[in-house]
Amino acid sequence: MQTLTALVFDDFETLDLFGPIEMFGCVPEHYHLQFASLSGGVIRSKHSVAMQTIAVADLPDQTDVLLVVGGIGTRQQIDNNEFLQTLVTLSNTADWVLSVCTGSGLLAKAGLLDGKRATSNKLSWQWVISQSEHVNWTKQARWVVDGKFYTSSGVSAGMDMALGFIADRHGIEAANGIAEYAEYRWQQDNSIDDFYRP
Amino acid sequence: MQTLTALVFDDFETLDLFGPIEMFGCVPEHYHLQFASLSGGVIRSKHSVAMQTIAVADLPDQTDVLLVVGGIGTRQQIDNNEFLQTLVTLSNTADWVLSVCTGSGLLAKAGLLDGKRATSNKLSWQWVISQSEHVNWTKQARWVVDGKFYTSSGVSAGMDMALGFIADRHGIEAANGIAEYAEYRWQQDNSIDDFYRP
Repeated sequence: MQTLTALVFDDFETLDLFGPIEMFGCVPEHYHLQFASLSGGVIRSKHSVAMQTIAVADLPDQTDVLLVVGGIGTRQQIDNNEFLQTLVTLSNTADWVLSVCTGSGLLAKAGLLDGKRATSNKLSWQWVISQSEHVNWTKQARWVVDGKFYTSSGVSAGMDMALGFIADRHGIEAANGIAEYAEYRWQQDNSIDDFYRP
Repeated sequence: MQTLTALVFDDFETLDLFGPIEMFGCVPEHYHLQFASLSGGVIRSKHSVAMQTIAVADLPDQTDVLLVVGGIGTRQQIDNNEFLQTLVTLSNTADWVLSVCTGSGLLAKAGLLDGKRATSNKLSWQWVISQSEHVNWTKQARWVVDGKFYTSSGVSAGMDMALGFIADRHGIEAANGIAEYAEYRWQQDNSIDDFYRP
């Protein structure tokens, strides 16, 4: 059993978080989920979802898997040194670090993706890659794996990445079982990217 | 501008709600979103998401579009007369009523789908159709439209239905624009159902 910590902030993109949470939530025998923010309390998504979170400092369980979401709220966090330092602290002790959409921009700004391959969403591509020139940015990918880092393309790609992660850890049958349960049309091959425009 | 009310209850299926919310949230010029439950307060999804809701009696805006989700929590609500009566009251005044997954079982039990075509998810199919014999249950469909009722198949199908609803109201370009933004591989044809097993 591992603990997955989803780190959120105001104006996060709703599906960036809850798509992967649905997938990880389908294998409760493997993952315990906890929802964190820098200061705890109620965090609101871009689409008015008000959710309760625990302050990072008060998290009851050590983070084995860190999930970093994206959305327009990243524009505030990218200049928040406390947030970036928290990313570093949680990432350093986590076994795995996953990001969705512009979440990889935050990881990049924190220096965590230096020398690594990574991807991000298409519409904010220039903003994301401007956060670090030390990352091998890969635009055509549903998601990218490099070491302990999984980074996905925009929004919905987070669900495909989550199933890919689960397949890598627990076997393809486990991931296919979740897709069947959730009636989700999983894009299983991470090199196929329907949203890449040359 | 219309007001969409998402009606939730404890142990709802996470993606049933937040998939459609992402899609509707992408057209804020058309939809204002409010999250309701019978008694208000914090509602927890099956996957530990704790969200704030408004009591139905305290909703500030009239419901133009009602979104009813599914999940294992439906097993409690199916015998909750106050909940079923609330479904009837909200549905009667709404222009449109949408359900995801086993949410259609709740609508059926409340008598709202009498004489109508509807679908639901695959894994709980027998439980859902046992809620009413007055519904023309259609198993092979990503989603079904009959009058003002849109009912979708399991979990992820709710996203396809939401985009289909948006296409019906605001044009295919609007729906395609959201799919492109969210990098979502929209199953646009509601008669194609990858999860139907004869």
